Amino acid sequence: MEEWLINLLENIKPVNQEVLQAAQERLDNLTKPRGSLGRLEELGKRFVAIQGDLSARVKKKIVFVFAADHGVTEEGVSAFPKEVTAQMVFNFLAGGAGINVIAGHTGADVVVVDMGVDHFIRPTNGLFHAKVRMGTKNMAKGPAMSREDALESIRMGVEVAFTYANKGYNLFAAGDMGIGNTTPTSAIFAVLTGKSPEEVTGRGTGIDDETLKKKIKVVKQALEVNKPDPSDPVDVLAKVGGLEIGGIAGLILGGAALGIPVVVDGLISTAGALIAVALCPMVEDYIVCAHKSAAFGHQAALERLGCRPLLDLGMRLGEGTGAAIGMWLMELGEKILHDMATFQEAQVAEGEEAV
Amino acid sequence: MEEWLINLLENIKPVNQEVLQAAQERLDNLTKPRGSLGRLEELGKRFVAIQGDLSARVKKKIVFVFAADHGVTEEGVSAFPKEVTAQMVFNFLAGGAGINVIAGHTGADVVVVDMGVDHFIRPTNGLFHAKVRMGTKNMAKGPAMSREDALESIRMGVEVAFTYANKGYNLFAAGDMGIGNTTPTSAIFAVLTGKSPEEVTGRGTGIDDETLKKKIKVVKQALEVNKPDPSDPVDVLAKVGGLEIGGIAGLILGGAALGIPVVVDGLISTAGALIAVALCPMVEDYIVCAHKSAAFGHQAALERLGCRPLLDLGMRLGEGTGAAIGMWLMELGEKILHDMATFQEAQVAEGEEAV
Repeated sequence: MEEWLINLLENIKPVNQEVLQAAQERLDNLTKPRGSLGRLEELGKRFVAIQGDLSARVKKKIVFVFAADHGVTEEGVSAFPKEVTAQMVFNFLAGGAGINVIAGHTGADVVVVDMGVDHFIRPTNGLFHAKVRMGTKNMAKGPAMSREDALESIRMGVEVAFTYANKGYNLFAAGDMGIGNTTPTSAIFAVLTGKSPEEVTGRGTGIDDETLKKKIKVVKQALEVNKPDPSDPVDVLAKVGGLEIGGIAGLILGGAALGIPVVVDGLISTAGALIAVALCPMVEDYIVCAHKSAAFGHQAALERLGCRPLLDLGMRLGEGTGAAIGMWLMELGEKILHDMATFQEAQVAEGEEAV
Repeated sequence: MEEWLINLLENIKPVNQEVLQAAQERLDNLTKPRGSLGRLEELGKRFVAIQGDLSARVKKKIVFVFAADHGVTEEGVSAFPKEVTAQMVFNFLAGGAGINVIAGHTGADVVVVDMGVDHFIRPTNGLFHAKVRMGTKNMAKGPAMSREDALESIRMGVEVAFTYANKGYNLFAAGDMGIGNTTPTSAIFAVLTGKSPEEVTGRGTGIDDETLKKKIKVVKQALEVNKPDPSDPVDVLAKVGGLEIGGIAGLILGGAALGIPVVVDGLISTAGALIAVALCPMVEDYIVCAHKSAAFGHQAALERLGCRPLLDLGMRLGEGTGAAIGMWLMELGEKILHDMATFQEAQVAEGEEAV
């Protein structure tokens, strides 16, 4: 393993258990029956424990939309043409996409990370240039990318984490854009969950029965042609992954090293999370799974991660749309922990609750 | 039935189907795969259809915490002493309760509606005085209140709807505060869902096994002593209900008459919704069920309403805490409908989605 990666992983520490305990004690003294704010309480205490500081507040929050193209679109696996990746990047930059509206409503900033869109995108506000290559190659015919490029995609994700931590953000959400990217995601799910391609391959943005059959065939072919090694996550990413998936894995590893929670979105972000956790199991505790995507296959990946999603709103857009809402819920948990009055402060009589 | 109530119910019209259809058409042209924002799309189109105007925006949103005391606390059915109702009202007014933090995070205002707290609460900012009486009587020994008082509690809820619509609010959430109020709620659930008291009576704020047994016995006794008529919702409210439950029913009826959606919270708000729907089945379409409460019995009531809750965050606090989040999600749906770019506007190629 590369020295920088070893060094990064060494910097990832377990989440602070003392802070977690102290947060639980405070939650139990707030003017409400114990535990009655459910998962919001869990999110509040996890936030401060990950930050390692009981008094930590959410300062600024941000959604990263990791964007890249996929050579496997040659096989006709998507309902949308490949050009839509770049077109949607321009839509994000212009503020007209789902993630712009949702992030705006949650008070989060949006940055598009160009990991490998097959189009030159000029520097502009809201864009982070991290292009490793002009999209991946067709994984049905050979590796999606070299091992070097896969490592570079991870490193660029780490770079994103450090850059924005340095700008004062302390809560991250990961999203994606990349026509064709549910196909490599299904391949990664198959390798890392042990499920068959049929069990983890769905309709993406909305393909018909015939295209779904072809997509499953393509996933199988990619696994046969490339034989990714399940015990080597970088090999899996290189052979059947994507540049945005590597970026998301890197963001998670970087966030964990910095004590910043990373809220993951749907299918593609969860693939990034699986790669990150395979590299360093401890990062599981830094990941928040925002929602159960309506996309087929997500459940298996969530189970593999041991992550219970917060929401089930029938969403399957990607872009970080579910993650932005999850991030807003985590901020709410933090506010509950810090801003509610205790029984003593509010002069409210405590009950005799059965514990 | 009283003339004012007949008149109100006559003013409730079906939700506008043309606007609903037009909203669906717009949603299908936005830059995302069709239906990929799931329930957020449903909320956006319902908002404009309820308002009867495709271009309607959420102007101001508000959570009403309907507060009242319950004579049945004499029977020892709650983990908290009765005084906590008034103490919590002061906590709401001081901004230290869960609903204050959550509503603040969602950008909603909070108003406490004093329907019948057994304590004089002086006029102050954030309080709406609608006191019908100083709490109900002990329903285990006779009717909780007279039919006149039950009707008056509904009328005060309607009054709240009209007053705040007049102040420019066009999205309402209903919450509750009242030590002991899960006991009348269980009785209402039993009468209006046809379930047994055992199936709809839970631990409230956290009572032990023995108190739960007593609580079930009290619900049974209240039903036997009072024999509420399931076909007469006002009779049910009077005999085994509560003043805040009547207020919530009134808010919903008033909201429906005014074309304003009402987001309901957990157990107690759902009891109010059951009363409102029993008076006028059409109001079902004006109600949004925010969440599945972690409190026992809620599921049966949601099923009776035919309402699929948006969230399942393990919450069981009441106060409108779940409803505030649901209201924020409805506002998000409205923004998605209006603020996202269409394929044409963003010059994004449309896909060939299977429908």
